[in-house]
Order: sequence, then structure tokens, then C-alpha cells
Amino acid sequence: MPDTSIPEIVIGRLPIYLRTLSRMAAAGKVYTSSHELGQHLGISSAQIRKDLSHFGEFGKQGTGYNISFLTAQLKRILKVDSVQDVALIGVGDLGRAIAHYQGFLDRGFRVTALFDNDPEKIGTKIGGLVIQDYERMETDIRQQEIRIAMLAVPFTEAQNATDILVKAGIQAILSYAPISIKVPAHVHVEYIDPVLHLQKMTFFLE
Amino acid sequence: MPDTSIPEIVIGRLPIYLRTLSRMAAAGKVYTSSHELGQHLGISSAQIRKDLSHFGEFGKQGTGYNISFLTAQLKRILKVDSVQDVALIGVGDLGRAIAHYQGFLDRGFRVTALFDNDPEKIGTKIGGLVIQDYERMETDIRQQEIRIAMLAVPFTEAQNATDILVKAGIQAILSYAPISIKVPAHVHVEYIDPVLHLQKMTFFLE
Repeated sequence: MPDTSIPEIVIGRLPIYLRTLSRMAAAGKVYTSSHELGQHLGISSAQIRKDLSHFGEFGKQGTGYNISFLTAQLKRILKVDSVQDVALIGVGDLGRAIAHYQGFLDRGFRVTALFDNDPEKIGTKIGGLVIQDYERMETDIRQQEIRIAMLAVPFTEAQNATDILVKAGIQAILSYAPISIKVPAHVHVEYIDPVLHLQKMTFFLE
Repeated sequence: MPDTSIPEIVIGRLPIYLRTLSRMAAAGKVYTSSHELGQHLGISSAQIRKDLSHFGEFGKQGTGYNISFLTAQLKRILKVDSVQDVALIGVGDLGRAIAHYQGFLDRGFRVTALFDNDPEKIGTKIGGLVIQDYERMETDIRQQEIRIAMLAVPFTEAQNATDILVKAGIQAILSYAPISIKVPAHVHVEYIDPVLHLQKMTFFLE
């Protein structure tokens, strides 16, 4: 069971640390410090040390963090030390871009099932995966023991698709549909809606 | 000048309120309350009243908020009461999906310029817009007085493209590249990286 006493906002920063450490490793660095990480990310070094201290002691006074060690620890904590299968619901323009995206695998995810309710798409393939009918969604996801889904359907279909995903045992949904979806308490939902970001930034335009 | 004394986290919630109000209006509702909005969004009614109180008095004791009035006020505050032009940099799978996305216009944004550095793409069209060379980016953005950009380039190109955007006078960048970009203090940056959301949720998997 995950430790639920750790604030969700702390959990949310770990993937950002992990991403930065991966970039540093790719650039050939071996050690870093909370100060250097903080400078990269615009987060105070004290905050970074405090966030990491929830999970153990990863650095040494003086030498700082060994990047490959801290990377491995963060992957283990976030459960991306093995690859997680993901179901993708909705294969329009956005879904297609997600299905083609090469940046998931080396960060712990692999799209292994595609679903759509458009008869013209069902049965066609993307990257070796056959797009399946909604009717197969519940049983396929259950059989493949997939626990994570990405939702790239029109907002009018988001709740319907979500209800099927919940019945199929999905525990985590990343939704691109611009609407709040309702799920039971044990299902985690995160949203991506570019317009929310754009509207926030226009406030600050001069 | 925008009022910079209002916490950024409050500004970040206004687009969510606006989105919910738009859905309510589309469903034929005329009035709502902070209680009802809060129930939709999982935010306390007190928080919603406090957020809105930064900008004025929008509701009435007893009747609550007139949805179309509050919508208009939020659009004005967020500067999306007129349509903002957006430049899109990078027209791969993701950029193409963004360029085709129909959900921007009625929420205040319109992609009016496309740029890529792939000779095979330059000169081709998407939705009536010609994809232009990076070399045109600075002058085109300046001439068209575009202040907002979306970045859908590979992470290795993100900083280079950003530097050109800053020179061109861009004030707000929504980046899909999975890397932190460096900008001067007057430029706002928001990020979309689906893997950060996925990794956060896998922590909570059982």
C-alpha cells in the first residue's frame, strides 16, 4: 500500500525531479545537489530536501546526490521501475498523436490497448495495435490487467467512457477531455486541458 | 496592468470556474451557487467565494450567481473576451492535433501561425495556414503582434525555439516539450507533460 500520509503535492513533484535527473544523466553528469536541482526547477533546495526526506536519506553531506542512485530510488517510489500498461480511449487526432508518442516507454509507460466507438476506426491499426470497439473495453482491460487509462474522447463522451473504465478496474485516468469526470474515491484522475493554461497566462499579458 | 497582488493559484482556478459555468450554460442553467460550483469541482464553496472576491461582487445572497453575467466577468478578467492569436511551433503528430483542435476558438484562442524547421513540412498547409520556416518566426510573430505561443517541438529543440520566441516579443508559452525552459521574468511559461501526471498517479496504484 502506498504511504498516504505524504502530501499529494509532494508526490506531484517527484516526477519533475526524476525528469530533471534523467536529463542530467543523459548529459553525462554523475552527481548533483539539492541546490543545483532547485536552480534548474525554480524550487528552493530546502523544499527538495524536505520532499525527498519523506522517503529516506538519498544524499551525502558534501557530495550531494548520486544521480543514477536517486533516479533508481525515485522510479521505485513512483512504481515506474517496471513498465506500466496503458489503455487509450479515443483515437482522433489527439489520440493518434498520443499513440505515436515515443516519449512514454523510457519513462515507464506503454500504450497496449486502443478503443474507439467510430465504426470506421474499429479494426484499423496504429503502431501494431488494433483499435477495438467500446464493447470490448471492459473485458479487454480486465483480461490484460491494465490499471491506467488515457482519455482522449470528446467531452460529451468522457463520463460514459469513464464509467466503463471504472467497471473494468482502472485505477488511474489521465483525461484530455475538457470536463470534470466523476469517479469513485479509489480512482485517481488527472486532467490535461491546454486552454486552462492559456487562459491563466492571458491574465498576465501586458 | 494586471493586478499582481492576487495569488497565481487563484488565477489558475478562474479558467476552471469559467469552463464549468460554460457547461452549465450549455445545459440550459441560468443561476448557480458557490455551493453547486464547489460540488462540481471538489472545491469548497468558501474557497470559490474568496477567489471571486478578489475581483468584485458577482453574486447575490439567496439567488447566487447569474451564470451568463459571471461568465462574462471571468472572460473579461482573463482577457479571453476577445480572441487571442497563438503561434504554434512544431508541427509533428502533436502539433498537427493541436492545429486541428476545434476547442480553442470558443474559449478565446485561435492558432494563426505555424512554424517548423523540417524542410518537408515548410510550405505545406494545415487548416488554411502555411507552415513557415523557423527563419520567419521572429519577424512574422512581431508583425502579427502575437503574444502567445504553443511549443510542440522535441525537447532537444525547445530552448532554441524559446529563445526565438522571446526575441519575437512572446509573453506566454505553453510548452509540451518535457524539459524546463529558461525565459526572462516577464515571460510566463506553463507546461504540459502527460508523463508527469501518469507517474504521479502510479504512486497511488494498489
